[in-house]
Amino acid sequence: MGRLRIEHGLVLPMDPPGATIADGVVVVEGGEITYVGAASAAPSGERAEVLDATGCLVLPGLVNAHTHVSMTLLRGYADDLALEEWLGGKIWPAEMRLRREDVYWGAMLGIVEMIRGGVTTFNDMYHYFDAVADAALDAGIRACVSGVLIGLIPGADEIFQQAVEFTAALKERAHPRLVPMLAPHAPYSCPDELLVRTAEAAAELGVRLHIHVAETEREVTDSLAEHGATPVGHLAQLGFFDVPTVACHCVHLTDEDIAILAERQVGIAHCPTSNMKLASGFARVADLLRAGACLGLGTDGAASNNNLDMFEEMMVGAVIAKGHAGNPEVVSAVEMLAMATRGSAAALGLDHQIGTLAPGKKADIVVIDPWRPHLQPLHNPISHLVYAARADDVRDVVIEGSVVLRDRQLTSLDEGEIIAKAREAAEHLVGA
Amino acid sequence: MGRLRIEHGLVLPMDPPGATIADGVVVVEGGEITYVGAASAAPSGERAEVLDATGCLVLPGLVNAHTHVSMTLLRGYADDLALEEWLGGKIWPAEMRLRREDVYWGAMLGIVEMIRGGVTTFNDMYHYFDAVADAALDAGIRACVSGVLIGLIPGADEIFQQAVEFTAALKERAHPRLVPMLAPHAPYSCPDELLVRTAEAAAELGVRLHIHVAETEREVTDSLAEHGATPVGHLAQLGFFDVPTVACHCVHLTDEDIAILAERQVGIAHCPTSNMKLASGFARVADLLRAGACLGLGTDGAASNNNLDMFEEMMVGAVIAKGHAGNPEVVSAVEMLAMATRGSAAALGLDHQIGTLAPGKKADIVVIDPWRPHLQPLHNPISHLVYAARADDVRDVVIEGSVVLRDRQLTSLDEGEIIAKAREAAEHLVGA
Repeated sequence: MGRLRIEHGLVLPMDPPGATIADGVVVVEGGEITYVGAASAAPSGERAEVLDATGCLVLPGLVNAHTHVSMTLLRGYADDLALEEWLGGKIWPAEMRLRREDVYWGAMLGIVEMIRGGVTTFNDMYHYFDAVADAALDAGIRACVSGVLIGLIPGADEIFQQAVEFTAALKERAHPRLVPMLAPHAPYSCPDELLVRTAEAAAELGVRLHIHVAETEREVTDSLAEHGATPVGHLAQLGFFDVPTVACHCVHLTDEDIAILAERQVGIAHCPTSNMKLASGFARVADLLRAGACLGLGTDGAASNNNLDMFEEMMVGAVIAKGHAGNPEVVSAVEMLAMATRGSAAALGLDHQIGTLAPGKKADIVVIDPWRPHLQPLHNPISHLVYAARADDVRDVVIEGSVVLRDRQLTSLDEGEIIAKAREAAEHLVGA
Repeated sequence: MGRLRIEHGLVLPMDPPGATIADGVVVVEGGEITYVGAASAAPSGERAEVLDATGCLVLPGLVNAHTHVSMTLLRGYADDLALEEWLGGKIWPAEMRLRREDVYWGAMLGIVEMIRGGVTTFNDMYHYFDAVADAALDAGIRACVSGVLIGLIPGADEIFQQAVEFTAALKERAHPRLVPMLAPHAPYSCPDELLVRTAEAAAELGVRLHIHVAETEREVTDSLAEHGATPVGHLAQLGFFDVPTVACHCVHLTDEDIAILAERQVGIAHCPTSNMKLASGFARVADLLRAGACLGLGTDGAASNNNLDMFEEMMVGAVIAKGHAGNPEVVSAVEMLAMATRGSAAALGLDHQIGTLAPGKKADIVVIDPWRPHLQPLHNPISHLVYAARADDVRDVVIEGSVVLRDRQLTSLDEGEIIAKAREAAEHLVGA
């Protein structure tokens, strides 16, 4: 990681959201941004690798705030099904066959897809999460990793112990691109004792919690019946939110839930495509924004999305928010781009490192080529990024100062091998 | 147009929807399909140009059932606005400056985008529609073209006359790729007299009608107040549907409206992204399918979408239908792919020519490359096409037997020139 100078682009630092720098320069040294500004005032590019971004847009890497990356292996395997049939009839039986190497190659496949789509950080929750960590290390992407903790299944205690130990080891290791978390699956699948124990362990380790919350209406109804509180209210009562948390989905919220989430600055990972496809419902995005909630954007896994495309997610998120609110003015393009960058970064507790382009931040940077028919003319670059752009408009991707995608080519990964290995793993899972 | 043989693909003829032919062959002669089936039974490829589709998906060209193609010039120019401000404050003032050459280059830009995205036919409604016709001819795409007829504006009668004359001339010319229609803008913007007069002219010319219907809730409320009937009911009472019609949007429908549309087999152009982004509402897609309505899919114009991407449209249409219905089982991937191909073809009255791959049909064919990270593994090709694929997964496009896109390269159009001319036209429109 030497010096890198990204030159002559239209820079969108997202700091503040909507700001633009024409003929901008971003200088990177040792994995960190040292300058963002006009070319006229930029330090010289001596001995720096140059990335010419003339005519291109330069923005912070997108942050996928919630996924199960290895579920790429089950992409398209179980669509158009009710949730129970989807999980019980198809996904869980396939996951019963999971081996560590399946998770690794599924993760590699998803990481390649995400890098190509301008994602520089993802927040994952899955089985064999040490394999996801290895894949992230090998691929050069930034990742938050956590295993899934579920109560009342055989081996739950052992899984908890393994998760805590691996998390402690990863924390100790302090790799600049790997962030461990602890992830109880959901309030309905974890007994209170496990939720509290996990929160205590997270507090002790100094890591964040990652959990599914209020994804379906039924979850809320059941929680009210069992606890006399909504899932958000119940977690708050348990003291769960005393530890910084990424709460995923948050579809069915009361006004009081929104107040709690905003006041406690719980990170929210909004997953609109998955919420639509599984018919979970419409999250109250406009209300959450108005309440000042800490709102990020995620794709969820490819078994329910069916891709890991944050450009698609931004578009879907913005347009369904308008459609559902009956108001085309809510959730603007700049609010949505902010959600996918600095918002997700804040939801993961990483906003001191990523999410905007500014000196001192990690050099996670995306260059977009807008000289394509579907992105012309260029009246408004941020409108284009949210409403018209596609993952394949990403030309270059820099993570921690390294150029991992250059001119649409992966610089260090063998895509053909990854696809072949992932296909083998997928065949194993579905018993083909 | 000689012989063409598309070999060794996984052929999805959409006849019946969902059928697949492994190691399939499609043979084309003189712009028409002469064979679709297994390689083992295929006629020889002697003297035929060969398109090797090994490992690829081969399907009918997508049919964009409703757009205003030249509005590419205003892509991203006016987003996140209420309808009145969008139209009155931004779009109409820009359109006041429209010149014939602007429409031509805007259409060329949109056509290039559509060809690259696997669209082989589009149904257009715009000003200077003779320029759209010229662009479609020059670009080699199939198009239905019509001018916009609006009542109560200066020159309305003259515009009507011009439209009728141009439509008659185009009908006379009988170009295999150009289909004229007559397009009163909407029931609320055209007095009954104009609606009836246009329907009579269409009947006389033997062309189809193209109209916006029931796009917003307010349109329905106003129609009930003014006519004592919904927009659909009112058009039915006027005898409008006695002429074959493409009715666009159809968002706010009563059960009786649905019964009328299904019984009269009115072609419906469903435009989900535009309906969401402008907050028009959720069309009753599952109900329309159940009623046996003639349902196609369209993007609307790029000023409200903001692209002409039918892959995005399929995904958005399927997932919001599930989300809105609260049922993940409605509007399956195969139903959505059928809507975007044979459904749109039927809505345009072109199902005898296009929409499926079968002997005797026009050779409008798309080859998709699924060997990309976001389309692997390939458990279910139709799920992938609807939920995971993007426009840039299109490798080759054949229209009327001619290969217009080969290995992602346009065979006869200068994309750089088209972008440059379209940018000039856009600058003119917005007074830059």
